[in-house]
Amino acid sequence: MRSVVSRLPVRYAETDRMGVVHHAVYPVYFEVGRTDFFDTHFMHYDEMERLGLFAAVIEYDCALKGRATYGDVLVVETRGEWMRGIRLHMGYTCRRERDGGLVAQGSSTLALVDSAGRPIHPRHFPDLYRTLLGLFDPGDQGAP
Amino acid sequence: MRSVVSRLPVRYAETDRMGVVHHAVYPVYFEVGRTDFFDTHFMHYDEMERLGLFAAVIEYDCALKGRATYGDVLVVETRGEWMRGIRLHMGYTCRRERDGGLVAQGSSTLALVDSAGRPIHPRHFPDLYRTLLGLFDPGDQGAP
Amino acid sequence: MRSVVSRLPVRYAETDRMGVVHHAVYPVYFEVGRTDFFDTHFMHYDEMERLGLFAAVIEYDCALKGRATYGDVLVVETRGEWMRGIRLHMGYTCRRERDGGLVAQGSSTLALVDSAGRPIHPRHFPDLYRTLLGLFDPGDQGAP
Amino acid sequence: MRSVVSRLPVRYAETDRMGVVHHAVYPVYFEVGRTDFFDTHFMHYDEMERLGLFAAVIEYDCALKGRATYGDVLVVETRGEWMRGIRLHMGYTCRRERDGGLVAQGSSTLALVDSAGRPIHPRHFPDLYRTLLGLFDPGDQGAP
Repeated sequence: MRSVVSRLPVRYAETDRMGVVHHAVYPVYFEVGRTDFFDTHFMHYDEMERLGLFAAVIEYDCALKGRATYGDVLVVETRGEWMRGIRLHMGYTCRRERDGGLVAQGSSTLALVDSAGRPIHPRHFPDLYRTLLGLFDPGDQGAP
Repeated sequence: MRSVVSRLPVRYAETDRMGVVHHAVYPVYFEVGRTDFFDTHFMHYDEMERLGLFAAVIEYDCALKGRATYGDVLVVETRGEWMRGIRLHMGYTCRRERDGGLVAQGSSTLALVDSAGRPIHPRHFPDLYRTLLGLFDPGDQGAP
Repeated sequence: MRSVVSRLPVRYAETDRMGVVHHAVYPVYFEVGRTDFFDTHFMHYDEMERLGLFAAVIEYDCALKGRATYGDVLVVETRGEWMRGIRLHMGYTCRRERDGGLVAQGSSTLALVDSAGRPIHPRHFPDLYRTLLGLFDPGDQGAP
Repeated sequence: MRSVVSRLPVRYAETDRMGVVHHAVYPVYFEVGRTDFFDTHFMHYDEMERLGLFAAVIEYDCALKGRATYGDVLVVETRGEWMRGIRLHMGYTCRRERDGGLVAQGSSTLALVDSAGRPIHPRHFPDLYRTLLGLFDPGDQGAP
């Protein structure tokens, strides 16, 4: 399974008055991880969009496992978990850099769509599709 | 089951360059729904915090079902789904006001903790606990 | 001078670990005020965009004058201060609803542009331009 | 004058439906620049807070000069412009990395306060104060 690691210093604006990173920030961190994943293993997602290929998040989840705040640097591991048809599933693990402590885990399912949000059939981008498919597990396991 | 409805005009800053509300904004909308839920059926969450009772999100999920953008008003229904021990589970349905179209669904699990994030035992706030419990289903069904 | 008042309960996600609304949230509040201003006195800004008329922020400032946090409801007054050529200048005053305490003041200058961000000449939208102009002071005073 | 340079890839969530970085994101970028400035020339701001020394933003401004979007990497230069009493003034210039194009300029004034937001007199932290002062121009010029 392909993966990539992103390094994210927590921003002050990302904390809330509980003193920790607000829970709704993690999907943003995961999106940064996804950018790095595509950029490393495929092409920059901005380039994908310019080719008319959009990956829209259709569902996601996040579990908070530990504390992170301003002053912490977070390390997000992003994994390409499975791909089936035009759906991709990616997993994320977020740890504190200083002690490796687990902070959050999550996943997201994305659908390949055009700029208007309509599903794109793989036959409209056969070469890119084959390359993308090679980055993911076939989806026989783990996919719902 | 107790529920409450919140009305949220989409803010321009909440859209992204796909032209729609960014997916990470929904947990923020759900949090507004939660504020309205507690304020209507219990007390303002700010008051809960002043009493030393914090409800920390420990996991959540979100499924995107339709399009919402600036110019839309969203209507979020927040439901108290179950409570077991110090865990509460809440559900959210987000629709466009103009046509009732489903936009997003989600849920979150919260844990009752003190200001340092440590679990609080119900015996430390017996009356509030009993009142809270009355707002939720007992948790025999639906709870993992 | 035309003005409008918007009512904004502070969201938990908008606070930071200092315990108050993060300073970068105020331009978002001001943008909500602007939406209400155009919607009340002209047309919904979403409609303006559909007509090809965009108002891009080209500069803004904000002064923090008091404390606001979750639990507070903020009241933003938005004023159309002056308009000159394709530039509009708007002012904002943000107060706590409960005691009228001043929280923040700010202003922003916007330029009327097309969807690609290029300046639009008033002759391309003469009727709308005249209507817009009527909402603002002529700009002889106060404009730099 | 002391300065520091920060490198910030634009996040997808930071764009809006105009297709560019939303204007309210720049104060967040400037805050990241400030973190890097203090970390490089003084100490991490998180450490300052642990010593009871908070730098609260009391006013700021931002001028948008060019286009930035997802796919761009931004380079923010942060400068310590002047310090007078317990007020610090910092300046920011934000450029695109690929072509050096100017994107935004801004400044912010901060006040040294305690955890409750009350002004702190320099005599309560004489050594830190002297060190901080050495990072800034004396404030005879440029200060209002």
